[in-house]
Amino acid sequence: MKEFQLIRQIQRQTSASTDSESGVILGIGDDAAVVEVPAGRHLVATTDTLNAGVHFPADTSPFDIGHKCLAVNLSDIAAMGAVPRWVLLSLSLPEVDPHWLESFTAGFHSLAQAHGVSLVGGDTTSGPLSISITAMGLIEAGRQLTRSGAKPGDMIVVSGTLGGAAHALEMLQTGNPVAERHLLDRPEPRVKLGQALVGHANACIDISDGLLADLGHILKASECGAHIDISKLPQSECLAGLKDELKWNYQLAGGDDYELLFTISPDHQAKLATWGNQFDIKLSVIGEIELQEGTRCIQPDGTAYNAQSTGFEHFRHKI
Amino acid sequence: MKEFQLIRQIQRQTSASTDSESGVILGIGDDAAVVEVPAGRHLVATTDTLNAGVHFPADTSPFDIGHKCLAVNLSDIAAMGAVPRWVLLSLSLPEVDPHWLESFTAGFHSLAQAHGVSLVGGDTTSGPLSISITAMGLIEAGRQLTRSGAKPGDMIVVSGTLGGAAHALEMLQTGNPVAERHLLDRPEPRVKLGQALVGHANACIDISDGLLADLGHILKASECGAHIDISKLPQSECLAGLKDELKWNYQLAGGDDYELLFTISPDHQAKLATWGNQFDIKLSVIGEIELQEGTRCIQPDGTAYNAQSTGFEHFRHKI
Repeated sequence: MKEFQLIRQIQRQTSASTDSESGVILGIGDDAAVVEVPAGRHLVATTDTLNAGVHFPADTSPFDIGHKCLAVNLSDIAAMGAVPRWVLLSLSLPEVDPHWLESFTAGFHSLAQAHGVSLVGGDTTSGPLSISITAMGLIEAGRQLTRSGAKPGDMIVVSGTLGGAAHALEMLQTGNPVAERHLLDRPEPRVKLGQALVGHANACIDISDGLLADLGHILKASECGAHIDISKLPQSECLAGLKDELKWNYQLAGGDDYELLFTISPDHQAKLATWGNQFDIKLSVIGEIELQEGTRCIQPDGTAYNAQSTGFEHFRHKI
Repeated sequence: MKEFQLIRQIQRQTSASTDSESGVILGIGDDAAVVEVPAGRHLVATTDTLNAGVHFPADTSPFDIGHKCLAVNLSDIAAMGAVPRWVLLSLSLPEVDPHWLESFTAGFHSLAQAHGVSLVGGDTTSGPLSISITAMGLIEAGRQLTRSGAKPGDMIVVSGTLGGAAHALEMLQTGNPVAERHLLDRPEPRVKLGQALVGHANACIDISDGLLADLGHILKASECGAHIDISKLPQSECLAGLKDELKWNYQLAGGDDYELLFTISPDHQAKLATWGNQFDIKLSVIGEIELQEGTRCIQPDGTAYNAQSTGFEHFRHKI
């Protein structure tokens, strides 16, 4: 593999301009990138790796792989309320296929452009298909959203719909037709929404492992509990027609939705409609933070529901 | 794989303290880390992935893997003259072996501690053994060392010895006894030296692909050429006794040494001895930057030498 040629090809297509707007002092092409963090801002940084056959089905289109590997990282930046600015891309490829690389880069680049994110460095190497991305963003000092600020009485709110990605994956795995594969392959990081939540939401996380699992992270960090009204859970259209318990399991435990889950005082209820309109995102109040530890799921008939699973733990480990 | 348990295990062993000295506002345990870049400093960021069987032999000890994956990233920070501060670790594992993980973490952590670097985030996932690290550091605004500043008349200087890592790898691959395997498995990033070079060296790079290949990057970026005196090349002890051309090939084209290669005005010659003593590193003047493009290698008898290879391009691709 001509590692250098490969780097140059990516570089040509996606290199950041070094100007004051991009904050890039030195981009691709040296031993490291140099970027400028403005006064009064803190740096927010996260990394996530996607492995073929684990985080995406082996037959996923390279365009969608390029989109998804960036999207899941931007989703983490969104969950902090930060503005994404720069990314590093580390790409392991079993072989160099220029068509694959071109399509991957197009998927990566179109999402990066949509969010004003500059590719500033990375590496390519030989190995099983794997993509590691580091996303870096900026937040006004001290204003980041965290998992630890939820307060009893907060509304629990989720963006978009739940369960669609897990349903698409299971249909694929079982050889059934998939109605909405884009929910699995093209998650939309809720970057603008995350920024709007700063100063309003008390806690925030993105849903990668499933609603109950990720809500559990907030509850643990915030030392409180919650109830969830199952009837309020937003559902992907592809779940219509499923039996209740099967549908609820997708909604409560399905991974890879990359929606934002946040808690916010009822005083801000009116803002939900404003944000929903502003960002064209459905926002659903699905429950309430409580003092008592643990999560209580309430069925539409008012009785308690014991969820079978608290997260598709196998989700990330085999496809 | 219990991803969360694994994260907690790493977290317990290596979590950064959130204090003003570490610059860590929010470390492991949220959707992203938050760190503080002081006024007047720029952020320097780099990422490198190491795949089993590609970047290290499959039988490498987990302690050494932990050391090396961090070392190669700190080496890039060193080549910029920056102070390493924070790292993100993305770890793909085929299975969870607590003993392996403990030893890996010990190797990683001991090098991180030696350089005052805090682990602030990352992820673990299922997949073929692969380690992606992002290293972040700080540099006084505008003072970074780059590949592009070399000037005709500059001395070309290299730290440490050359060819030892490539020799160790070849001995392993051919089933021969390996005298100095630590040169392959435990490279020492020249972090303090890199920082000392700021304001003095005109160009700098770390040697990962081989002397001629990495010198070539400087020459291309700086639009100049060079001559190299082969008799001046520092050699690893394990190369003693080899025939000249074989030895020279290791020195000129062997990868994975992670020494610093820099160019500096002869006005600073006296500083080389100072730095050598201060950091206990051998510094060798091996040639000179010239106006004429290309690299001319001069044999000990004064005649030109045509190097057979300009870099172990296969080095990163199979072991």
